[in-house]
Amino acid sequence: MPASKAQILKKAKNIKLLACDVDGVLTRGEIIILNNGEEVKIWNVKDGLGYHELKQIFPRVKTAWITGRESEQVKKRAESMGIDYLVQNCMRKKTAFDAILGETGFKASETAYIGDDIVDIQVLKLAGLSICPNDAVEEVKKHVDMVSSFKGGEGVVRDVIEIILKAKGEWKKTLERYK
Amino acid sequence: MPASKAQILKKAKNIKLLACDVDGVLTRGEIIILNNGEEVKIWNVKDGLGYHELKQIFPRVKTAWITGRESEQVKKRAESMGIDYLVQNCMRKKTAFDAILGETGFKASETAYIGDDIVDIQVLKLAGLSICPNDAVEEVKKHVDMVSSFKGGEGVVRDVIEIILKAKGEWKKTLERYK
Amino acid sequence: MPASKAQILKKAKNIKLLACDVDGVLTRGEIIILNNGEEVKIWNVKDGLGYHELKQIFPRVKTAWITGRESEQVKKRAESMGIDYLVQNCMRKKTAFDAILGETGFKASETAYIGDDIVDIQVLKLAGLSICPNDAVEEVKKHVDMVSSFKGGEGVVRDVIEIILKAKGEWKKTLERYK
Amino acid sequence: MPASKAQILKKAKNIKLLACDVDGVLTRGEIIILNNGEEVKIWNVKDGLGYHELKQIFPRVKTAWITGRESEQVKKRAESMGIDYLVQNCMRKKTAFDAILGETGFKASETAYIGDDIVDIQVLKLAGLSICPNDAVEEVKKHVDMVSSFKGGEGVVRDVIEIILKAKGEWKKTLERYK
Repeated sequence: MPASKAQILKKAKNIKLLACDVDGVLTRGEIIILNNGEEVKIWNVKDGLGYHELKQIFPRVKTAWITGRESEQVKKRAESMGIDYLVQNCMRKKTAFDAILGETGFKASETAYIGDDIVDIQVLKLAGLSICPNDAVEEVKKHVDMVSSFKGGEGVVRDVIEIILKAKGEWKKTLERYK
Repeated sequence: MPASKAQILKKAKNIKLLACDVDGVLTRGEIIILNNGEEVKIWNVKDGLGYHELKQIFPRVKTAWITGRESEQVKKRAESMGIDYLVQNCMRKKTAFDAILGETGFKASETAYIGDDIVDIQVLKLAGLSICPNDAVEEVKKHVDMVSSFKGGEGVVRDVIEIILKAKGEWKKTLERYK
Repeated sequence: MPASKAQILKKAKNIKLLACDVDGVLTRGEIIILNNGEEVKIWNVKDGLGYHELKQIFPRVKTAWITGRESEQVKKRAESMGIDYLVQNCMRKKTAFDAILGETGFKASETAYIGDDIVDIQVLKLAGLSICPNDAVEEVKKHVDMVSSFKGGEGVVRDVIEIILKAKGEWKKTLERYK
Repeated sequence: MPASKAQILKKAKNIKLLACDVDGVLTRGEIIILNNGEEVKIWNVKDGLGYHELKQIFPRVKTAWITGRESEQVKKRAESMGIDYLVQNCMRKKTAFDAILGETGFKASETAYIGDDIVDIQVLKLAGLSICPNDAVEEVKKHVDMVSSFKGGEGVVRDVIEIILKAKGEWKKTLERYK
């Protein structure tokens, strides 16, 4: 069920962990594998700047990527983005999510999760703030607080990071960093 | 001629073979060939999860790809998706389709076929359930039960797999697998 | 100035040469060059099938690509498509176009040309049938008989080939080839 | 605040420097890095022709790219486009912009700048003519004279170059070059 704008900001204010799926969220869902086995990923620069800002303004907010697939590219991008928890090759995302909660001591209500497919629904139901990209599968859209106006790979994670920064009253500070 | 929603579900209930074209259906129709001759394909993660679910829930439903082109990438992706019948380099798709019917013993009425171009029309006419992507050529749209709301490479195969799972009353079971 | 549908069919009926630009017409206009200097092109499978049909049905209709850039990929694709005249590294397209007219003995009125940018305008003005993709630059749209409903790289050349086949009364024959 | 069409032309008439961001302006914002560390960029042919024309018609108008990232591909493309000032790995764009003003002796009012993200806002505020692509982040859209109808990587820089050429009364001359 969709939440109101006020509810979303209220939920976003408490976020201590921003977790998300990879393919279809951080990318448009393209799967590109070369003959030598190398997987090519197409990321979005706006998501990248979003993570950069989140880390600068709130170094204590943790980030996680939980993906059903596995590739070297995801590992490299996660490192360069400073992602705290990377779980690859994982179809049981709730198990991975619970493990992160256990390790951090965060409550589910203190997390935001972005996912686009049916493997993400259980975590979307648990997370304090649940969002999906505009081109998520229909079943997923029924279970989120908010359907982003952005598609996967076109800035949906950035969209959520801006909501978190605004909810926590730090958007102005973010902008001022470049003055 | 387009079929009604009820007719489509009725047809989908009987499907024993899900066959489709590759370029323009499983991809956006991009043809990318490197100087060394390697062809690069851009698949969609949502179609991938669709095949995964179909195989898990209905291991006896057979799958086929029939393509007018030929590349190592298609072979590799077909293997990783567990596609039962892969026919490459085939412009006479009806011949390939008939051969698969002969081998499986399935009737044409027990098949679904997804195609986007004029080489697919004969098989679309034969198949029990015929679907094309939203960006199929106009001539093809005249000959299908349903024009998907998805473009090629943006989840049209996934769309059809969900229809089959729902028609067979197994959608709930699919969702519960990730609980 | 846009021509009426009847005028377009009349012009298309006489076509003996189908010429076009490459980047932004046969592709979306992406320029991708790897560190080793290799240029990667993204073609469209629907254009490919269009050329295949045109060559089968009208082996005497000539085809030409005239491009301001130069790459190995364009040469290879032109060969595999059976393009009769390939002119690369050419910013004065009229000169190349005139040379092809000279060599073939065709009149300008017997040619169709598809272009998307200002370097194409002179040839668009000369050609018997002039078309641009839907995302051509505004200046170009003023000088064509028809703005295709397709963007560059999404099937604009295929669109024109279908118009030519229909105008020449050979569309049915094209479809019957796959029966 | 958006400027009127007349104001934009007035500002464009004085431009001596056309500066812009790279990712999300000259590209769609895709970040593609291969396993060997090579970064792949997808440029647009229409922007390329725009720079070509600007250099031919106004060799004294300077061009600059200021980007927060760094790659060999950007360097190579800047060279082939004849870009006068390339500043990579730069998150403090105002500093780089000021340095270019210092070196050229141009006033800020004699510059145009195109940017799509919050790191560009300070320079957008300073530049005589400020433009963002259609898919710039919302915050940026508040600070520009004009939101282009083109997205990043789909011809936004070309759009601005045409405005400059028209404002300076040289559009006709540009078109005549290909007669």
